[in-house]
Amino acid sequence: MKNLEVSTPTKKRLLYLLKILEKNKAISITSSQIEEETGWSRDTVRKDVSALGGLGSASGYETAHLSSTIRKALGLDKKHRLCVVGLGRLGSAYLNFRTFNASEFELVAGFDTNVNRVEILSSLVPLYPAYKMAEIIRRFSIDIGLLCVPEDQAQSAADKLIAGGICGIVNFAPIVLKVPPNISIRNVFVIDELRALAAFL
Amino acid sequence: MKNLEVSTPTKKRLLYLLKILEKNKAISITSSQIEEETGWSRDTVRKDVSALGGLGSASGYETAHLSSTIRKALGLDKKHRLCVVGLGRLGSAYLNFRTFNASEFELVAGFDTNVNRVEILSSLVPLYPAYKMAEIIRRFSIDIGLLCVPEDQAQSAADKLIAGGICGIVNFAPIVLKVPPNISIRNVFVIDELRALAAFL
Repeated sequence: MKNLEVSTPTKKRLLYLLKILEKNKAISITSSQIEEETGWSRDTVRKDVSALGGLGSASGYETAHLSSTIRKALGLDKKHRLCVVGLGRLGSAYLNFRTFNASEFELVAGFDTNVNRVEILSSLVPLYPAYKMAEIIRRFSIDIGLLCVPEDQAQSAADKLIAGGICGIVNFAPIVLKVPPNISIRNVFVIDELRALAAFL
Repeated sequence: MKNLEVSTPTKKRLLYLLKILEKNKAISITSSQIEEETGWSRDTVRKDVSALGGLGSASGYETAHLSSTIRKALGLDKKHRLCVVGLGRLGSAYLNFRTFNASEFELVAGFDTNVNRVEILSSLVPLYPAYKMAEIIRRFSIDIGLLCVPEDQAQSAADKLIAGGICGIVNFAPIVLKVPPNISIRNVFVIDELRALAAFL
């Protein structure tokens, strides 16, 4: 069961709640404790959780069970396969990112238009020239791409990822990509992060 | 005038509105057009903008003027000075990030505990060994740090930044930093981005 029919704001809250639960060492957590950590009203918490099925009791929610239920509801209970596109400094940083191993995301390939770079770079996963993108994405059922190419190559690289059958892109290039409505995008723009920080200094 | 007394949700909306305005090529924009692009009600838009002073007219807002007013209200009209801490792959990617030049953020220094790396790396800005952090932060009035060190060094590097007088940190290390309440933090965790993406695939 993937992607329960829950609203976007509920999904966002469940993602955040999952993070809190994963850090929580206690066996159970109450909706008031969640309210305290998040600022959401207890009613909101109860409504979000009850959308997943009746999980609560008088003493609160069992953290391990609630975590795994949320993971299931958000499609995070199965491994997603990733590729990195663009093996410059940023892309090659992710090639060797150990935290993937402990997560539900599995990095399986890297791509670059520069064939030399593909041959020379040390990497734990196989690297391929960019023209093989569609073939490799299909062969390994890759569903998410980390887009780490320079700004002027980002749209064409995204087009190739999508042609290969990818469903989602984490975009590190500082441009807004034009993609079909069925493709999900997360933009990670350091300038936006800096502005959001500066506005609260 | 920095940091007008506007609420956190208003600030967040103004940040997003600024992005829209900067992409907008038209001379003016109406609150209905903003409503269409953002999903916020026209009333919310008008209230947010009127908090900055009476800027509207019957034909809408003048985009250039509204942008500069928002920038001023959010403290984005002055240059903020940055440093990068941790000059591995990710950190050295930011050392040579050209987009900073066109922004209100100026990268002025890089730090690493590895003195060899500091001497060998090619960089447009001066690099220093980590023990000089406090001295250099004060000398160049650096107010924001990009934290690019490995997970196990992130807290101690953050402590050094804060001891040096930094006000804000963009944290790329996958841990939640413990910092005093007057320090602002933005976490950029690729696993969180991937989860947020996967939940909407």
